[in-house]
Amino acid sequence: MTERSELAEATAQRLFGVGLGTPPAGADQPGAAVRQVFAEHAYADSWTRTALDDRSRSLITIAMLAALSLQRELRPHLHGALTLGVTPEQIADVCVHVGVYAGVPRGSEAWSIAEEVISSRTTRWG
Amino acid sequence: MTERSELAEATAQRLFGVGLGTPPAGADQPGAAVRQVFAEHAYADSWTRTALDDRSRSLITIAMLAALSLQRELRPHLHGALTLGVTPEQIADVCVHVGVYAGVPRGSEAWSIAEEVISSRTTRWG
Amino acid sequence: MTERSELAEATAQRLFGVGLGTPPAGADQPGAAVRQVFAEHAYADSWTRTALDDRSRSLITIAMLAALSLQRELRPHLHGALTLGVTPEQIADVCVHVGVYAGVPRGSEAWSIAEEVISSRTTRWG
Amino acid sequence: MTERSELAEATAQRLFGVGLGTPPAGADQPGAAVRQVFAEHAYADSWTRTALDDRSRSLITIAMLAALSLQRELRPHLHGALTLGVTPEQIADVCVHVGVYAGVPRGSEAWSIAEEVISSRTTRWG
Amino acid sequence: MTERSELAEATAQRLFGVGLGTPPAGADQPGAAVRQVFAEHAYADSWTRTALDDRSRSLITIAMLAALSLQRELRPHLHGALTLGVTPEQIADVCVHVGVYAGVPRGSEAWSIAEEVISSRTTRWG
Amino acid sequence: MTERSELAEATAQRLFGVGLGTPPAGADQPGAAVRQVFAEHAYADSWTRTALDDRSRSLITIAMLAALSLQRELRPHLHGALTLGVTPEQIADVCVHVGVYAGVPRGSEAWSIAEEVISSRTTRWG
Repeated sequence: MTERSELAEATAQRLFGVGLGTPPAGADQPGAAVRQVFAEHAYADSWTRTALDDRSRSLITIAMLAALSLQRELRPHLHGALTLGVTPEQIADVCVHVGVYAGVPRGSEAWSIAEEVISSRTTRWG
Repeated sequence: MTERSELAEATAQRLFGVGLGTPPAGADQPGAAVRQVFAEHAYADSWTRTALDDRSRSLITIAMLAALSLQRELRPHLHGALTLGVTPEQIADVCVHVGVYAGVPRGSEAWSIAEEVISSRTTRWG
Repeated sequence: MTERSELAEATAQRLFGVGLGTPPAGADQPGAAVRQVFAEHAYADSWTRTALDDRSRSLITIAMLAALSLQRELRPHLHGALTLGVTPEQIADVCVHVGVYAGVPRGSEAWSIAEEVISSRTTRWG
Repeated sequence: MTERSELAEATAQRLFGVGLGTPPAGADQPGAAVRQVFAEHAYADSWTRTALDDRSRSLITIAMLAALSLQRELRPHLHGALTLGVTPEQIADVCVHVGVYAGVPRGSEAWSIAEEVISSRTTRWG
Repeated sequence: MTERSELAEATAQRLFGVGLGTPPAGADQPGAAVRQVFAEHAYADSWTRTALDDRSRSLITIAMLAALSLQRELRPHLHGALTLGVTPEQIADVCVHVGVYAGVPRGSEAWSIAEEVISSRTTRWG
Repeated sequence: MTERSELAEATAQRLFGVGLGTPPAGADQPGAAVRQVFAEHAYADSWTRTALDDRSRSLITIAMLAALSLQRELRPHLHGALTLGVTPEQIADVCVHVGVYAGVPRGSEAWSIAEEVISSRTTRWG
């Protein structure tokens, strides 16, 4: 592993509690290299910058994913946010803000997904 | 003025240092009512929520506006962010994150605008 | 309930034949407040304006949801349009227009959903 | 001219009061053919469909262009809408609806452009 | 069938190995006409142009569909690309480029779909 | 300079005939680091991949920028495409395809910009 891929792995571990995983057998396939580029861009080059703390960057990530209707990535990042200590009430505030700045349907869909994620982690919410 | 419009006015004052302004003469025109609805949705209904502090919501706003290429609104919100105490380094981190999650062209365009706004406010940056 | 939430409820009843429903037990959860904000923005503040009639606003809603790929909201609004008396042929015209102005894939996907919704309501269509 | 290009020309004449214009000298350039395809898709294939009347299709067009931040096309279509008899109050209702379904910044930007267009055509509005 | 619809049919046959199919019984339904318009715009008016070869246009199609999160159309066009002789490695390069220009989540989602499509066609990839 | 930044510089030189330029004086400003990240993602990590040749990747870039309404980046990439030997007729085909897959307004706007760029480089086109 290169220095950047190790950094990406360590960052993912910090954010999600699990790493990105080892590449599947057959690492000469293009897929391994594609995932490596993406992981390094996100987790070695951006999440490691130091002017923003993890929670702030997590809130920004959720807001952008919701505003761009990228539901598939939204779910793990909502888990990541809660792992970092972001509260359900803060996620609700993000979703209302998405609704105002990117349209009610996007804010509403993000909140529906957030409720599922929150419910799956806690009895308090059910 | 209604309670919600007063709240919107006070919030804009807090964020930007200036209010939304009084409606122009001829308040029976549709334009006054349109702007009122928009101001209340943003400044009475979302920016007043309390789980997020102003700086966090400001960072989220900038990220979403950049990710959706809404440059016209980005400029005043960058001024607002700096007024609230967000640092240029934090705005840089937001723009890099926009570049990764919404594409390099959007992150790059947002940072170009941010550099203009920052330069216009400080000799440190020029 | 406040005046705006009552207005939102009455508008949803008019458009969809059913209301937005009472908030679930545990109304101190953030979810109830989030849904309230969204319902008021859409159904108390926009759908109640009087320069456009319900059918025109319904056509506009469908066009925007299709153009922004917001399929989850498209389905209930297609039902709402048909309830208001919009014809399948008018929905087809909207979808063709979406195809030209927002791209064939979006127009085509909207029309596929529309066909399902129309079929589910009428034997004429099946 | 083919039948479809004549139809496109006639439709543009009806909507905007002026036609699409004759192709510039040098019609062997790719540009003439590109513009022809676009004109036919919009004005021969979609605006000629008969389930929606011109005013309804005009409102839908404005809503989609605003929701997708396509400001360059928005301006002529706002002129077209007013030519067809759409009222400023109806355009205001469209913009509020855009604000709710596609986000306040897009509704607000569309309304700013609409105010300019309306002002440029009438003393009533200035 | 008109000349344009025959052209659309032949193009689809060339790209996908199967045609667009005959319209379902009940061709007086609006659906048949809607699908006809879309098929002609794509397969009679654009894919038949001659400055680009099929493989180049296929790569462009995949890139745009991925960049706009139009997953439903992405899948058949990935099959079409492989049928035309585009290699998995070239699709990987497209997805990385989508990740840089339209954001990592969109590049990553496109690549996940591509891996499924590639695996479904070849034992080499599984 | 690191190896990746040198690679980015060399790639930009190859594509545009000029490099990205040396960082401005005051390289401790956040701007230099932001631009570095973006340049490396695009020019060291994606444009250097070898399954696609430069012309194919250039066509894909133009299509995506047009489909996402990223006009600011579109202009230099159109110059880059022509420098690489892409023909005006091929750019026209890309713009028609953008019109079909991302909507006529986006294809049309891209073609307008392309005509300006092409005219500025050649007397053949004026």
